[in-house]
Amino acid sequence: MSSQAPDRAIISYGPHASGGWHLRPVSVRPLREKEVLVEMVASGICQTDLHFAGIESGAGVHYPRVMGHEGSGYVRALGPNTSTTAKPGDPVILSFSACQDCETCADGHPAYCSRFNDINFNADDANRVFRDTTVPSTSPAETHPVYGQFFGQSSFASLSIVHEDSIINVAGCVKTRDELRLLAPLGCGVQTGAGTILNAASATAADRVVIMGLGGVGLSAVAGAKIAGCKQIIGLDRFDERLELARALGATHTVNTAAVADSGQSLADVVREVTGGLGATVTLDTTGAPALVREGVRMTALKGRVLQVGVTPEEACLEIPIFEFMMTGKLFMGVIEGDVVPREFVPRLVKWVQEGVLPLEKLVRYYPAEEFETAVKDMKSGRTVKPVLVW
Amino acid sequence: MSSQAPDRAIISYGPHASGGWHLRPVSVRPLREKEVLVEMVASGICQTDLHFAGIESGAGVHYPRVMGHEGSGYVRALGPNTSTTAKPGDPVILSFSACQDCETCADGHPAYCSRFNDINFNADDANRVFRDTTVPSTSPAETHPVYGQFFGQSSFASLSIVHEDSIINVAGCVKTRDELRLLAPLGCGVQTGAGTILNAASATAADRVVIMGLGGVGLSAVAGAKIAGCKQIIGLDRFDERLELARALGATHTVNTAAVADSGQSLADVVREVTGGLGATVTLDTTGAPALVREGVRMTALKGRVLQVGVTPEEACLEIPIFEFMMTGKLFMGVIEGDVVPREFVPRLVKWVQEGVLPLEKLVRYYPAEEFETAVKDMKSGRTVKPVLVW
Repeated sequence: MSSQAPDRAIISYGPHASGGWHLRPVSVRPLREKEVLVEMVASGICQTDLHFAGIESGAGVHYPRVMGHEGSGYVRALGPNTSTTAKPGDPVILSFSACQDCETCADGHPAYCSRFNDINFNADDANRVFRDTTVPSTSPAETHPVYGQFFGQSSFASLSIVHEDSIINVAGCVKTRDELRLLAPLGCGVQTGAGTILNAASATAADRVVIMGLGGVGLSAVAGAKIAGCKQIIGLDRFDERLELARALGATHTVNTAAVADSGQSLADVVREVTGGLGATVTLDTTGAPALVREGVRMTALKGRVLQVGVTPEEACLEIPIFEFMMTGKLFMGVIEGDVVPREFVPRLVKWVQEGVLPLEKLVRYYPAEEFETAVKDMKSGRTVKPVLVW
Repeated sequence: MSSQAPDRAIISYGPHASGGWHLRPVSVRPLREKEVLVEMVASGICQTDLHFAGIESGAGVHYPRVMGHEGSGYVRALGPNTSTTAKPGDPVILSFSACQDCETCADGHPAYCSRFNDINFNADDANRVFRDTTVPSTSPAETHPVYGQFFGQSSFASLSIVHEDSIINVAGCVKTRDELRLLAPLGCGVQTGAGTILNAASATAADRVVIMGLGGVGLSAVAGAKIAGCKQIIGLDRFDERLELARALGATHTVNTAAVADSGQSLADVVREVTGGLGATVTLDTTGAPALVREGVRMTALKGRVLQVGVTPEEACLEIPIFEFMMTGKLFMGVIEGDVVPREFVPRLVKWVQEGVLPLEKLVRYYPAEEFETAVKDMKSGRTVKPVLVW
């Protein structure tokens, strides 16, 4: 329980790079309809947090706000008219929110909810959730000036108001606080990597999978490919430690991209060599580097699938040679959040972690919330794959 | 039986445009392993015939050759070691050939056979099948100087030597010569259109389908979408007669692209309007016009599929804005021959024709083989959707 110590949150007052993130004592406003009060146990840090609180305000970027969207914790209270099955005291893992109403939601693709940006990134008066208690409120109308509900949750806070749709009740399967701490990143980074392989690509034992970029998403994809029993799992990265980690998670081959660049060979050549001349049946890019995306198309086999997960610069284009692409039967698609339904997929991930087939502990490093600056630095430098802030 | 009249073939001595096609009396060489002698009843003409015998010789283009790859007829004899179930006298519909051995063939995607070009387009001594009997053979080594086995069949001939893999035995379901004549185009144009919708896109009643270009492939796609029960079937073409035909085949909406161009609206705007603002869940381009392909991506809904069937100029590229494509969950893929297994899919097409749900007779116009010039002219002018040469 957080009843003794004051509640705290990492408030982003402006871009992180210019020092705009501060851990502050906070209070939260009363719950409204379809909201759930969650005492956070932990929250993973994801590149998307750095992106959305790393740039000036604009579309989807609002200050001051509490970021964080890989939270886990315990339900403390329910607002009016919630439909979640979770009750006070239940352990929960948090994911993104969707409207559950539009065509893509109804078809089982909530990551493509037509209101996704509005629900997860935008903010209005209803999203004013927090107040820095060291600052007196300037007007009665603005008693809680700090926005919350980033990805429906704003999990960089010891106590937060979460949209009910972000709640995954794991009361049936998670027993301890330590376990809940480990499982925090399942609702974004891990479901994105593993879900892209297992769900969006429906990879099987017949597949030769290439995963470009071995950060949290890429390594989760390696683990997903191992779970799917893919006959070749080829990990590409420029850091040897990441390649080693990929092998520990199930990669059958690893390629140091920096060494290949020095050799004058192309990555596509190397992948064709490793795959007996055939190429990859599933190629996954998690880097967002346009040159790698293009190379990924080239290393893909006849009828192979090229899946884009890494966020490229907004203006980057992939030039697809239409005729060649058609004759070779390749497929290009982007995948958000593994295209999973979190309430169905995250419990499967929990089971795989518990059975030891998804060794999440190899990816995670814990940091007390007050050391968030170190955590961000370690993620950026590559020292830590998945930093998890502990409340 | 063709025993009374001499056998004949349309021999392409060079590009069609320069008058290099001639109907000539021919003889065929003796059958070899895995070959089947087929007396043709009819053959559809397809754009690919015009393409491959419309340019100078080079990769996959060999003169003199007999084109034609939408043949139907009766088996007259089997070569040694054939594995087809067809016996002399059986009616057959012909399709492309594949090796049946490589990874993509084994996975059920023979249209992406790794040896597709080699088997269907290239030619070597083994493919010297025909001799123009009015020309004395110049050397004993070249008694049959005219290449056959285009798409495994070279069906622009009253008698041809067909690769056994191109044979679809329809002895169980086709009773008359007239029926066989009508069914000739199933093995390429019709399976490409209907197969792309029913097989590659797996369209269902939930889909809003846009079909760009209403030639033989596009109209077969309309019929396929009608069979799938798609809730909206939107046909786009610049000729009103084609739009009318599309409506007769099941299109729920048609759009004259020339009229839209004059109006200043974009096609994507029009399709969004027709689809209640959502866009198409399946967008099929049969035109190969790069500008339409790009517009097709724009008119596609969240999580929609963009399928490329029309042959674009070889150098044409589609510039995919990677980030936007990913966020909207769209998918781009090329489809060859509907990605079907012809021996499974063509019998289903036959049944649909017989049941009246695939009114092939609305697309077909018959021409005696000797009127092939008129047939080609009528196809190019748009007077005829699918010309069928009758032997």
